[in-house]
Amino acid sequence: MEQLPAPLRAHARTLLGPGPSDVDPSVLRAISLPTVGHLDPAFLQTMDEIRSMLECLLGARGGRTTALSATGSAGMEACVVNLVERGDRVLIGQSGVFGGRMAEVARRAGAEVTLVEAEWGRPLELEALRRAAAGRQFRFIGLVHGETSTGVLQPLAGLRELADECGALLLVDAVTSLAGHPLDVHASGIDALYSGTQKCLSCPPGLSPVHFSDRAIARIGSRASAVQSWYLDINLIEAYWGGPRAYHHTAPINMLFGLHEALRLVLSEGLEPRFARHELNAHALWSGLEALGLELRVAEEHRLNPLTTVSIPDGIDDAAVRGRLLSEFGIEIGGGLGPMKGNTWRIGLMGSGSSRRNVHLVLSALATVLADMGHRAPENPIAAAASVYDA
Amino acid sequence: MEQLPAPLRAHARTLLGPGPSDVDPSVLRAISLPTVGHLDPAFLQTMDEIRSMLECLLGARGGRTTALSATGSAGMEACVVNLVERGDRVLIGQSGVFGGRMAEVARRAGAEVTLVEAEWGRPLELEALRRAAAGRQFRFIGLVHGETSTGVLQPLAGLRELADECGALLLVDAVTSLAGHPLDVHASGIDALYSGTQKCLSCPPGLSPVHFSDRAIARIGSRASAVQSWYLDINLIEAYWGGPRAYHHTAPINMLFGLHEALRLVLSEGLEPRFARHELNAHALWSGLEALGLELRVAEEHRLNPLTTVSIPDGIDDAAVRGRLLSEFGIEIGGGLGPMKGNTWRIGLMGSGSSRRNVHLVLSALATVLADMGHRAPENPIAAAASVYDA
Repeated sequence: MEQLPAPLRAHARTLLGPGPSDVDPSVLRAISLPTVGHLDPAFLQTMDEIRSMLECLLGARGGRTTALSATGSAGMEACVVNLVERGDRVLIGQSGVFGGRMAEVARRAGAEVTLVEAEWGRPLELEALRRAAAGRQFRFIGLVHGETSTGVLQPLAGLRELADECGALLLVDAVTSLAGHPLDVHASGIDALYSGTQKCLSCPPGLSPVHFSDRAIARIGSRASAVQSWYLDINLIEAYWGGPRAYHHTAPINMLFGLHEALRLVLSEGLEPRFARHELNAHALWSGLEALGLELRVAEEHRLNPLTTVSIPDGIDDAAVRGRLLSEFGIEIGGGLGPMKGNTWRIGLMGSGSSRRNVHLVLSALATVLADMGHRAPENPIAAAASVYDA
Repeated sequence: MEQLPAPLRAHARTLLGPGPSDVDPSVLRAISLPTVGHLDPAFLQTMDEIRSMLECLLGARGGRTTALSATGSAGMEACVVNLVERGDRVLIGQSGVFGGRMAEVARRAGAEVTLVEAEWGRPLELEALRRAAAGRQFRFIGLVHGETSTGVLQPLAGLRELADECGALLLVDAVTSLAGHPLDVHASGIDALYSGTQKCLSCPPGLSPVHFSDRAIARIGSRASAVQSWYLDINLIEAYWGGPRAYHHTAPINMLFGLHEALRLVLSEGLEPRFARHELNAHALWSGLEALGLELRVAEEHRLNPLTTVSIPDGIDDAAVRGRLLSEFGIEIGGGLGPMKGNTWRIGLMGSGSSRRNVHLVLSALATVLADMGHRAPENPIAAAASVYDA
């Protein structure tokens, strides 16, 4: 080529969008440890420890818990293609981009999809799902626990019972909720769950923690056809992660070093304190945003703590605001997806990024940029946030 | 959990197996740069530069070149599932594990596979492929350029013409050959190619460079059915890597930082000097191994330079030797796969690991361990290697 690109340099960013989130320096240090072989005894121990820590984080009892060698979207595909065979009927709830994506993945796997839609910004109602099921049997019922496109937290209560009524497995997307909201696969009767590393785990993107219950594994064992994806076949993956250590593919060693450290940080903090921290900072952010005269898109009882959606005021240019936040303050927030594109911002307080420091940072920067654009804030956002912290 | 695992520590290893290979410190440093957003202007530039450098490395003219967010095995699956639809006929050459894997992936994608087998340790003959084709048409002809299980380099000459006779696209696995052997997708008429980062690119595992020719892209554009994998659908991936920057999945930012630096190192060295270095060190290794009285598994004219297969002498315990190399010398070499398990070692000199230093290291350590086990070396392996360097 004519001229070789320059070496990359570090960019000073505070990542307060829908993910990736800021990564703890100790995780970056772990990622940069010298690579070892994927069958090295030291690495096999690392994998065992990752599995144990993930099981602890998920509340898993039995089943198979692992981290797939691809991003959270591949985790979604892995759950779907292991559970369904061509012609199977599935019931999927859609209240944003990611439920719709799950339906598309299922269709491509040959499933017949019954889609239940909720308004964007609202969770799915259990009764709406039951009505759509109409007494039929399904291979799985699939929902998104934390909708990253809308900022809605989907309640999981009652879903296990509904799944039992439908002879269905229960599949849950926990990409944005894992390690930011309480989640217990055993207590909620979840059969298949996937997540990503780049949200509340505060690890770079590239891996997908997944869990299959014993019930799901039994179902996969009784398939009549091979899983359509060789790469995502959980039984082949388990032969490497589990007992025989049979070669399947070469694991992404350094990314797994990072996940090991990220999980250590999560469990060192403790799950209850971590969830409480996410809740406190989210409430402070909400209070500050409302003080700025901004409208939150989701009713308080349905809000995700790690990700808040905000309406963009009339007359304010979405791209201009996000551009100034990035260029002048080094802050990334997210734009909207789908019908929320151009009218919604997504502000993430995820993992180590959920801090009072970042609440102050984003509120003060947003206040400054909006004021420049003629938007008048009714109250002082920092004072409003402080009232939450002081309560 | 009862006790939190300790933080990971660095292990002193020299990775001389079939991959992962040793990673340059500057690549590890790039991987540990602070994460940025996947739509950050700085990151979009990084992606553009990666694409340009990959095109240069591959000799690509047109088509689509990218790095998939998963390992080389997913690259194989991506090439297969984008090219075939259910019921398509494909012709696949198998002379080791990876050709067989390609056939399995194709069967799972609904293809009807005609398999042409060669003896392990031998390349496929063009005429054998032509006979197997028997004048029929195929969706693609697939082969492995560098068989990591056997250490054979598959000649590519004549394959384009054969593919044309069969109305077929030409699919090539370049996992172990890319950046270690000359390879030019344009000159060889390759329509789809995949590789991995953890071999001669000397980057940690986790990404898969792939290339599709304009002809392959046109074929994909005329599919009657959707690609079965949403995650690996090259048109969706291109919408992010190419013009519209449409969100598909969150790219593995830090891994891509590493690939950027690894590609810079490859192109800084220059392709011809790099290939010559791999060839020189391979010849020195071969000479040293023969001086040790070991038999190489592949005839010299068919050997891969980055990966050498060696017969384990009668009476020598495979696992004991590899265990001592690892524990006493920090050297990893690989065992055999399939019919070569237990009777073959695989020694890699890949990327930055292809050096005189490593040739000396592995020969002297192997000589020491084998002598302890009663194997008598007819000649001095270091002197034999030196005669190659001095020639």
